Amino acid sequence: MDNELFIQKHQAYFLQTLEKLVSIQSICKNQAQIDQAVDFICQLCKNLFSCQIKIIKTKGSPVILGELNAKANAKKSILFYGHYDVMPAEDVKNWKTDPFKLTLRNGRLYGRGAGDNKGQLLGVIFGLYVYQQLHHGFPCNIKLLIEGEEEKGSLHLQSTVHDLSAAELKEIQTVFVIDGSFNFAGQHVLRLGNRGLLGFEITLTTNKTDAHSGNYGNILANPVLEFYKILSKIYNFAENKVKIPYFYDGIRRVTQDEENILHKLPAVSFKKDNQLDFQNSSDYYKKLMFEPSFNINGIQSGFLGQGIKTIIPGKITARFDCRLVKGQSIKRIEAGLNEQLAAWIKQGTVEIKYLNEIPPYYAGIEDRFIAKIIASIRKVDPQTVIEPIMPGTVPNYVWEQNLKAKVFTIPLANFDQHNHTANENIRLDAYLQGIRIIYELIKLYTD
Amino acid sequence: MDNELFIQKHQAYFLQTLEKLVSIQSICKNQAQIDQAVDFICQLCKNLFSCQIKIIKTKGSPVILGELNAKANAKKSILFYGHYDVMPAEDVKNWKTDPFKLTLRNGRLYGRGAGDNKGQLLGVIFGLYVYQQLHHGFPCNIKLLIEGEEEKGSLHLQSTVHDLSAAELKEIQTVFVIDGSFNFAGQHVLRLGNRGLLGFEITLTTNKTDAHSGNYGNILANPVLEFYKILSKIYNFAENKVKIPYFYDGIRRVTQDEENILHKLPAVSFKKDNQLDFQNSSDYYKKLMFEPSFNINGIQSGFLGQGIKTIIPGKITARFDCRLVKGQSIKRIEAGLNEQLAAWIKQGTVEIKYLNEIPPYYAGIEDRFIAKIIASIRKVDPQTVIEPIMPGTVPNYVWEQNLKAKVFTIPLANFDQHNHTANENIRLDAYLQGIRIIYELIKLYTD
Repeated sequence: MDNELFIQKHQAYFLQTLEKLVSIQSICKNQAQIDQAVDFICQLCKNLFSCQIKIIKTKGSPVILGELNAKANAKKSILFYGHYDVMPAEDVKNWKTDPFKLTLRNGRLYGRGAGDNKGQLLGVIFGLYVYQQLHHGFPCNIKLLIEGEEEKGSLHLQSTVHDLSAAELKEIQTVFVIDGSFNFAGQHVLRLGNRGLLGFEITLTTNKTDAHSGNYGNILANPVLEFYKILSKIYNFAENKVKIPYFYDGIRRVTQDEENILHKLPAVSFKKDNQLDFQNSSDYYKKLMFEPSFNINGIQSGFLGQGIKTIIPGKITARFDCRLVKGQSIKRIEAGLNEQLAAWIKQGTVEIKYLNEIPPYYAGIEDRFIAKIIASIRKVDPQTVIEPIMPGTVPNYVWEQNLKAKVFTIPLANFDQHNHTANENIRLDAYLQGIRIIYELIKLYTD
Repeated sequence: MDNELFIQKHQAYFLQTLEKLVSIQSICKNQAQIDQAVDFICQLCKNLFSCQIKIIKTKGSPVILGELNAKANAKKSILFYGHYDVMPAEDVKNWKTDPFKLTLRNGRLYGRGAGDNKGQLLGVIFGLYVYQQLHHGFPCNIKLLIEGEEEKGSLHLQSTVHDLSAAELKEIQTVFVIDGSFNFAGQHVLRLGNRGLLGFEITLTTNKTDAHSGNYGNILANPVLEFYKILSKIYNFAENKVKIPYFYDGIRRVTQDEENILHKLPAVSFKKDNQLDFQNSSDYYKKLMFEPSFNINGIQSGFLGQGIKTIIPGKITARFDCRLVKGQSIKRIEAGLNEQLAAWIKQGTVEIKYLNEIPPYYAGIEDRFIAKIIASIRKVDPQTVIEPIMPGTVPNYVWEQNLKAKVFTIPLANFDQHNHTANENIRLDAYLQGIRIIYELIKLYTD
């Protein structure tokens, strides 16, 4: 039987299973439902694959580890990553149907987790199931690692993977992260990396308390004006460049091959208010994927409430986030920032707190295997493109650091899945395409 | 009988009257108590002086206008300004005694309004009373203008004085503002002016909404970084100078005579955190009294609450206050600010709101009458100094603009009067000195 026919025959079952999984409200704070989701997935995998399943305890929600061995003594081992936790659906009044009752409407399956990540997770499980049923076993060892804290920032992923790296996850060469969504043009994407994140907060204290501007205007320094002097030590306003030492160290030029890949990405229209200047879509993508950002996500000093307080504020606080690209070193940048503001730190007027430290990840585009992966996905969606870097931040560095594995991200949900908000959905055809894509990926290992 | 003996004999009465006035809780929002304070003061003046009293209605609390005519047909007319409203005393637990029960303790009279301004107001009334009793009349026409909204920012003072300027307040040459406190060294001061105030708020909008820094970092402009460009159009960070066109127009150099006066002010110790650099006390006073300030009293953008939001904020707002000195024109400065930010205003990204517009006032030090005033006050306190400019802002411009009168401010309360906070007080000796000072001032007009 060919896989297409098999999928058609089992479609009702695939839908019923997703319906059941969506009905379990596996929100992080809901321990009973988390446990029920874990049970359900473990039972499903046991039934489908007769495989070993371990439940790895963490300080938060448990991690499910499934081990599906190859029929012969295959040398290659791959891992699929997904998560079973979902965001709350507290905005119930904005949902057209019950968030925890999967509902088919206009070719889409609506429900919390339908896209993020239950539908994608079942895409993986059923894709493997189709392969196993048609080929009576696997051509490579397959691990399923399914966590329950992705929506909280994967708090224990790093330590869990580290703990498992010596035995259970030894010799994993490749990790497929099945999460996220297609690009805005509706194309499937193969993602080879993501930007990292360095978040920090700077507080400048110029005076122990606020002071009256009538009594102290021209006598005490103003912290907002002083702060811009500090800012100009770490940012060049004229050229819009970061002046933190070592910030740009390790970043390499975009290669011609990478440029070629960017040229294949869908054209962007530049209409958003105050968008920075771009010559063309390729420049836009280069900025977004291959260059670090320097952003202030909050600043506060003094009083801006009702009424007027003519005070000289005593301090100012600003929070920064920098999206990082391959080559940049968080430790070096932090050292550079401390160096640059050393005079103020020594004086006791400036304090720096580091808030986020997530390294970037990039598999590179040179791996010859990439062409094979994209060819597999294109059997299902010929429009599939390579997105070298996802501009946002996910903890894909975890796999590289602990397992020395290459990481590829393949989202199986539509761009308009409305994850985290009301009326989350996965298109029925995207769900079934997902199953086919996983099937095709496993076929790669028969070569 | 000499005035000293007279004051001693009547001391108990002066204290009882202050006790009664303090017991009336004339807080702006308390209409019944405001009315009671007005009645009490009107009745007191009628009893003491058999004078004409008018109650001038305003959209807020009424203004009391007393008219005490000279015994002969004196050409000179002077005005005393005070206020009968007080700040609330909501922090009762911080008061050692009932705020509305005048209490003598360690030579100080404690109570809300004891210093600000009831004690000073009665200093005026009783000073005049002493003069009248000893000299059987006044050598000049005397107006008492006592408002009830000083603690709310004298909301209707300008319009009231304007309305009265054609008749009741015609031909006032001199206004004595009896409010404030001695200098920190405990000396009585004669104030010849005060700095004005220009307050404004600038909002820069770079995007209609906040955006995710992962999706838009390097694509959308950051408003906090953009704001620096705006700020550096109006402020020179390298030289700490304002770049708003016309800002410094009309300001003249401090004269040698003014320098000489500054040299007589008490020495300042420069110990406060992050105080700007000063060579000596005279430079300090020059900055504080004769130079405008440029202060940001609040700035806000994005999110600084619990947790982290990696957003690119859509806008930033900052509030400014500039203390102004004689010569500066509010209208010209506002025009200059609008000019300087014209490109952004035209674009629709910057909006400026003007919040406070209070002109500075300065009588100058050349008036020969000043020497006579200070000599009078020194009869009571030989340490009295001239403070050319009060660094804060009071609406003394009102008298200059509407009456073309010279304004002199003579505070009758001690520096540590704790006005506006708990345990407000006036030193008993300061209260009695105040009566003597007013007596001496009237004597000036017999020449």
